[in-house]
Amino acid sequence: MVKLAVGSAADSFSAASLKAYLSEFIATLLFVFAGVGSAIAYGKLTSDAALDAPGLVAVAVAHAFALFVGVSMAANISGGHLNPAVTFGLAIGGNITILTGLFYWIAQLLGSIVACLLLQFVTNGKSIPTHGVAAGLGAIEGVVFEIVITFGLVYTVYATAADPKKGSLGTIAPIAIGFIVGANILAAGPFSGGSMNPARSFGPAVVSGDFSQIWIYWVGPLIGGGLAGLIYGDVFISSYAPVPVSGDYA
Amino acid sequence: MVKLAVGSAADSFSAASLKAYLSEFIATLLFVFAGVGSAIAYGKLTSDAALDAPGLVAVAVAHAFALFVGVSMAANISGGHLNPAVTFGLAIGGNITILTGLFYWIAQLLGSIVACLLLQFVTNGKSIPTHGVAAGLGAIEGVVFEIVITFGLVYTVYATAADPKKGSLGTIAPIAIGFIVGANILAAGPFSGGSMNPARSFGPAVVSGDFSQIWIYWVGPLIGGGLAGLIYGDVFISSYAPVPVSGDYA
Amino acid sequence: MVKLAVGSAADSFSAASLKAYLSEFIATLLFVFAGVGSAIAYGKLTSDAALDAPGLVAVAVAHAFALFVGVSMAANISGGHLNPAVTFGLAIGGNITILTGLFYWIAQLLGSIVACLLLQFVTNGKSIPTHGVAAGLGAIEGVVFEIVITFGLVYTVYATAADPKKGSLGTIAPIAIGFIVGANILAAGPFSGGSMNPARSFGPAVVSGDFSQIWIYWVGPLIGGGLAGLIYGDVFISSYAPVPVSGDYA
Amino acid sequence: MVKLAVGSAADSFSAASLKAYLSEFIATLLFVFAGVGSAIAYGKLTSDAALDAPGLVAVAVAHAFALFVGVSMAANISGGHLNPAVTFGLAIGGNITILTGLFYWIAQLLGSIVACLLLQFVTNGKSIPTHGVAAGLGAIEGVVFEIVITFGLVYTVYATAADPKKGSLGTIAPIAIGFIVGANILAAGPFSGGSMNPARSFGPAVVSGDFSQIWIYWVGPLIGGGLAGLIYGDVFISSYAPVPVSGDYA
Repeated sequence: MVKLAVGSAADSFSAASLKAYLSEFIATLLFVFAGVGSAIAYGKLTSDAALDAPGLVAVAVAHAFALFVGVSMAANISGGHLNPAVTFGLAIGGNITILTGLFYWIAQLLGSIVACLLLQFVTNGKSIPTHGVAAGLGAIEGVVFEIVITFGLVYTVYATAADPKKGSLGTIAPIAIGFIVGANILAAGPFSGGSMNPARSFGPAVVSGDFSQIWIYWVGPLIGGGLAGLIYGDVFISSYAPVPVSGDYA
Repeated sequence: MVKLAVGSAADSFSAASLKAYLSEFIATLLFVFAGVGSAIAYGKLTSDAALDAPGLVAVAVAHAFALFVGVSMAANISGGHLNPAVTFGLAIGGNITILTGLFYWIAQLLGSIVACLLLQFVTNGKSIPTHGVAAGLGAIEGVVFEIVITFGLVYTVYATAADPKKGSLGTIAPIAIGFIVGANILAAGPFSGGSMNPARSFGPAVVSGDFSQIWIYWVGPLIGGGLAGLIYGDVFISSYAPVPVSGDYA
Repeated sequence: MVKLAVGSAADSFSAASLKAYLSEFIATLLFVFAGVGSAIAYGKLTSDAALDAPGLVAVAVAHAFALFVGVSMAANISGGHLNPAVTFGLAIGGNITILTGLFYWIAQLLGSIVACLLLQFVTNGKSIPTHGVAAGLGAIEGVVFEIVITFGLVYTVYATAADPKKGSLGTIAPIAIGFIVGANILAAGPFSGGSMNPARSFGPAVVSGDFSQIWIYWVGPLIGGGLAGLIYGDVFISSYAPVPVSGDYA
Repeated sequence: MVKLAVGSAADSFSAASLKAYLSEFIATLLFVFAGVGSAIAYGKLTSDAALDAPGLVAVAVAHAFALFVGVSMAANISGGHLNPAVTFGLAIGGNITILTGLFYWIAQLLGSIVACLLLQFVTNGKSIPTHGVAAGLGAIEGVVFEIVITFGLVYTVYATAADPKKGSLGTIAPIAIGFIVGANILAAGPFSGGSMNPARSFGPAVVSGDFSQIWIYWVGPLIGGGLAGLIYGDVFISSYAPVPVSGDYA
């Protein structure tokens, strides 16, 4: 059951909320910088050869480590979403109001765009790789792939961070959230690319000007994240009292 | 000494138990999806070349990260087994009743099968790799290999999660459980494949229709897991009071 | 707003402070030994071939693991900086006095130099690889690259260790600090080298006698670390009471 | 200052001590099985080619993960040494009596030997790789290499586990202990091999019958571990009250 929370608009402009948006912006920027940067680094090391197994490991580990740390950076301030699909999945369960969630999205998207602009500068103009479905696969396979793996990511966020019964799991929640993305990239990398995150895909699309497949990385992750919010929230969490923005990892 | 617990059958159908089965189903599905998916991804990157060292690292890290997170996902709801050998090893020590354990097995096996069906769809029909003993090895070597490494896995579950004296180790238990599987795959991958988990092997067998060696991955892990339960339970745990299903990581 | 703390000079020579300097010396030595050692090891394995993806993974993982552990070694004694940019970033926020910070710098630089001398001995005279900007990039790109990634590192130190509101994040702070360096090396390795740490770059420069680009690895990290201290300190920490040297991870 | 503790001999034969020896035996066995197994697996994947960077990553990660978990397995029962150099380093600081320490050594050595015998069986007779100094290096370089890296390992054990002031660092101590070994192998692998552990080297020497360089892996680690015990114990720990065997990670 969808439990969208509509808060007082003033709450979305409180000092705490503005800090939360800034926190999402910075943490998403740093996550995307390392993640997309690792893909560019692989291209530089191999003169843009096709992805191989060591490259997949490099990119997966970079995303796993960087998302873990990015979530840690922002956990106590904004809850550490860094991802519109996470924000959406938490909104579905009533953990964040719609208006505040929209500002989270904007902060995340801006963070990703700025990260890609910075990468373009510091690499002296390397092109920014975008997500796209592998040759031989249709868009529907790509969408379903992203649904499944984003479901796993947002389900992890619920089980380890948003669930009031999480107990000591909360201590390692940021590691779990980062590492499920690493594991899923090791499976999805050569197929859908393994985004799980519209912001991660959107920045490269904007900076490269290539929006041809970007819809896949909005539709898949939002469906997957929303499903996780519905299922985890309805089945495994009994009380739906919205928690304050800055309390997800407390 | 085997300490099988026979609970009231009604307990196995309580709301908490039904949630536990669903939790095992989802977490096993997501673990197998990433784990088997990483093996398929390696095949795609290399046009199905023989496994090499980077591929082994990719597959081992995917399993380590995904099992860590899968255990975290389910820890507070079902105890986070995701593996019939873990359930069996805990049943040997009296930590879960036989009937409830059977439903755990069913949930785990269904999760693995659905994961493989999903993988077949999202990869547009790639074949699902199954476990098998390497050429040059006999079945007995495969069975003993799986016994030793599953013993290590279930012993880890006992020491870090099921032992009432675990203390702060419980906080990092899911990481330890995932990473011992990663370490063991780095050793066993080119020999027995490094399953340690009948469910992990069963889903691919069902979806590919190849049951030729599946018995190895039931016999080895169940013996190894059972031995760990016997030894750890008898030597290192003094009190055998069955703990509630949802309390293994509390 | 810069909040430099000027303490009593006697504090910088207290027994606790002298232990802190020794702790920084030892932990930086062991971190640099493993980090630079991994780069030398790659050269030995490949007869000094150009860096490839497996080599980048090896070097990034070595730095990530070694910095995590190095920070852990020193956390309760000196706060676990191991890096002049971290010390500077914390000084900017008033978390350490200027004089004590200077002794930290000296200890870190000496640790790095001794590590490189030891490496030269135990490898029977292998040359010590120094940081430098890749061909095709200008110094300005290198400086900005180091600014961005060091900002991420010091921001992580603030969010997970120095922030009094860190809560249970403090438990995993050393892992986060190590792993953001690993992630950033996976992006920066083939471009700026991914130092984030003047001490990490200074030891190899001294022992190899090549100071041609060392300024990049002072300017970039100090600007990045300082910015992180300013922004995190001003926006996200409300009280600036200097904490005792040995309390950062308490 | 050496602070050897001489306890009542009866303590070394108490039920708790016997359980501790068994715990050391099992955990060392499982650690060596995965660690040495990963080296054999690399040989199998490459038809015994010379080590390359992906192989070094595989072996380092296997040791890091397996030691982390092995320490976790035994932490609450025996303190989780798994290594005569760790036991020696802790004895130097008075943390374990000499007689009990000797039984720890025996348990660790037996665990390693049995692990190698099992590996020989399950791999259908593969030869067990032994530690040795690389061509072009002298024994003295090998010894000093092992001194430095074992110093780092035992220093980590002191800082994160044995120091009564460790605080929340104790929660992640097993991870730190495993990962410093991983980092050090990435540096030492192609030179001294990166043992840091006489038991890890002794089992392969016994089973392969090659004792030609085994002294290096006793002398280096014992000196390094002893130095760490002396320095950490004398400088950073003020009270030397011996702690009970099963309390190192409490």
